Amino acid sequence: MKITQPTLIIDREKCLSNIKKMVNKSRKYKVKLRPHFKTHQSAVIGNWFKNHSIASITVSSVSMAKYFADNGWNNITIAFPLNIREIEEINKLAVKINLNVIFESTETVNFLKTHLLHRTGGYIKIDTGSHRTGIIAENIKQVDKVLNQVKNCPKITFKGFITHAGHSYQAKTKEEIALIHRDSLKKLNRLKDRYINVWKNIELSIGDTPCCSLMEDFSGIDEIRPGNFIFYDIMQYHIGACSLDEIAVALACPVVAKHKERNEIIIYGGAVHLSKEYIYNKDNIKIFGYVVEINKGKWNTPIEGAYISSISQEHGIMKIPDKYFEKIRLGDIIGILPVHSCLTNNLMKSRVLIM
Amino acid sequence: MKITQPTLIIDREKCLSNIKKMVNKSRKYKVKLRPHFKTHQSAVIGNWFKNHSIASITVSSVSMAKYFADNGWNNITIAFPLNIREIEEINKLAVKINLNVIFESTETVNFLKTHLLHRTGGYIKIDTGSHRTGIIAENIKQVDKVLNQVKNCPKITFKGFITHAGHSYQAKTKEEIALIHRDSLKKLNRLKDRYINVWKNIELSIGDTPCCSLMEDFSGIDEIRPGNFIFYDIMQYHIGACSLDEIAVALACPVVAKHKERNEIIIYGGAVHLSKEYIYNKDNIKIFGYVVEINKGKWNTPIEGAYISSISQEHGIMKIPDKYFEKIRLGDIIGILPVHSCLTNNLMKSRVLIM
Repeated sequence: MKITQPTLIIDREKCLSNIKKMVNKSRKYKVKLRPHFKTHQSAVIGNWFKNHSIASITVSSVSMAKYFADNGWNNITIAFPLNIREIEEINKLAVKINLNVIFESTETVNFLKTHLLHRTGGYIKIDTGSHRTGIIAENIKQVDKVLNQVKNCPKITFKGFITHAGHSYQAKTKEEIALIHRDSLKKLNRLKDRYINVWKNIELSIGDTPCCSLMEDFSGIDEIRPGNFIFYDIMQYHIGACSLDEIAVALACPVVAKHKERNEIIIYGGAVHLSKEYIYNKDNIKIFGYVVEINKGKWNTPIEGAYISSISQEHGIMKIPDKYFEKIRLGDIIGILPVHSCLTNNLMKSRVLIM
Repeated sequence: MKITQPTLIIDREKCLSNIKKMVNKSRKYKVKLRPHFKTHQSAVIGNWFKNHSIASITVSSVSMAKYFADNGWNNITIAFPLNIREIEEINKLAVKINLNVIFESTETVNFLKTHLLHRTGGYIKIDTGSHRTGIIAENIKQVDKVLNQVKNCPKITFKGFITHAGHSYQAKTKEEIALIHRDSLKKLNRLKDRYINVWKNIELSIGDTPCCSLMEDFSGIDEIRPGNFIFYDIMQYHIGACSLDEIAVALACPVVAKHKERNEIIIYGGAVHLSKEYIYNKDNIKIFGYVVEINKGKWNTPIEGAYISSISQEHGIMKIPDKYFEKIRLGDIIGILPVHSCLTNNLMKSRVLIM
């Protein structure tokens, strides 16, 4: 296939290797892997997990749950605070598949009590420090309250406590991630210990790719839900969660203009393809992606000193050292390793090339 | 229609008023309005311009040109450096409609000489200071070179010089915008004066919404190509290019969780809906959107002190003062005025509600 427009190239071999590594890890530490499919949002890629007997998945919206249910997945956790406005769709799913939802307030559980029509698994969302959402782990009073409501809601099967230690994304070293992870584990296990006598089958489910990739201690944890690891990206590389070699997606972009006086090359590839996610590199420069040479759909390590310095709707500006500048010609295809592969894939999912 | 998921509400009345204002301005200053359709990317919304006898439009990609050509528009400028990889599609369009392309290098013109099959308008892209792309306005040698190549390319009808003073987006006051605008005008008119004896029909085309919205001097300019003005957004408001009342789009988002201890409300609405574009407000706080109450598809001025402070793939975190916090309940719909409406609309274009 001739690439004429920005196209997301997915390296199948790297994805399969990333999947295998995470599957092996989950087996080694005896935790169930329930991969998050929000990263790829693709039935084709989802099937790659089936070779490893993965039957349960995570998604981040009711629409995604519907999509994957329609594509044969029948055990799905929607890892997003239950949106009561979508109760109709949730009921339609719950009758068809093993569905799990998450909640953190008595209001939501009360709503479910009167509106949930079919048996559904329910997790309480716990905030172990990311402060995005969830009940603060120490707030036992609130956990008690919600659990008391759950008791009165026969359609909910209480599954346990779920968290996403998203603050690991801000970590700069493996040690910082380890601190966050140990803290999460401690807080979650405290909850498990407290309620296990009443709720015999309580599970603990954790989610973030940095912790799942780097940590070796999963004491008390029953389930991990990483998603990004299938593709990884520059952000994960900077956190230390992956090597550059493990990044499995690159946006292929045509070169449309060159500016010798600034060592800048303009590519067809902008915010509507990559997303505006950025990161500061080690020299504290804002970057929107690293640059790789693409050869027959494969790429090597990034070109040293080259990066995407700015993007607008359709344009990307690439900074590139002298010695590479002249080699690149108008109409060439340049590969960009994205900063956040979930967002890039979300924008590009209708134009991917699996190699 | 019941809103269950993030939905982009487009206020038709505000859009029509924004269109009318820009049309009137273009007539007053005797410049042709060739609106940029990359903002809305919609055939339905595009038709709103037809009542004002607008027949020529701008787009930012060959795909968009194809889409609007298929929807009855037959005079289209693709305001993006010509991507030689899309020559086949360009040739298909050029036979069907009056197509204009832009270029800035002899390499591109040489390529067109051998590959362009049908008469096509061509602009030289000039950089008046934004330094995204284009020939630096003072680089007469390069303009000469490209024009000499154009002479040898009988399929290209040279139309003139086109620029996008994108550096106006960084301006903080009307005075700064005026400086940028005057400088652009001076540079472009110098080029027009230099070449008008040889190329009798040379036109000057400028593009950015801040200058087109705020400036009153269009001396020598033949055409303006603003796009964002149909919707405007928080970025334009901060630049001073529009009032809050003129912002014509709001993302309607369900409330899914509340955190009293932090005065934060979690909405279903994240980076895959709004985009990760942000701005620093007057208190130097990073914001991803302002918050409005939505009532029957309409909204008033933003809630003072409320803003989106953080977004991840599907979650948005809204900061909200005490007195509004209690009023908002789970399942309510909250409106978000986006920072950059072009990017939000690009993400949401398949789920809009025109009110």
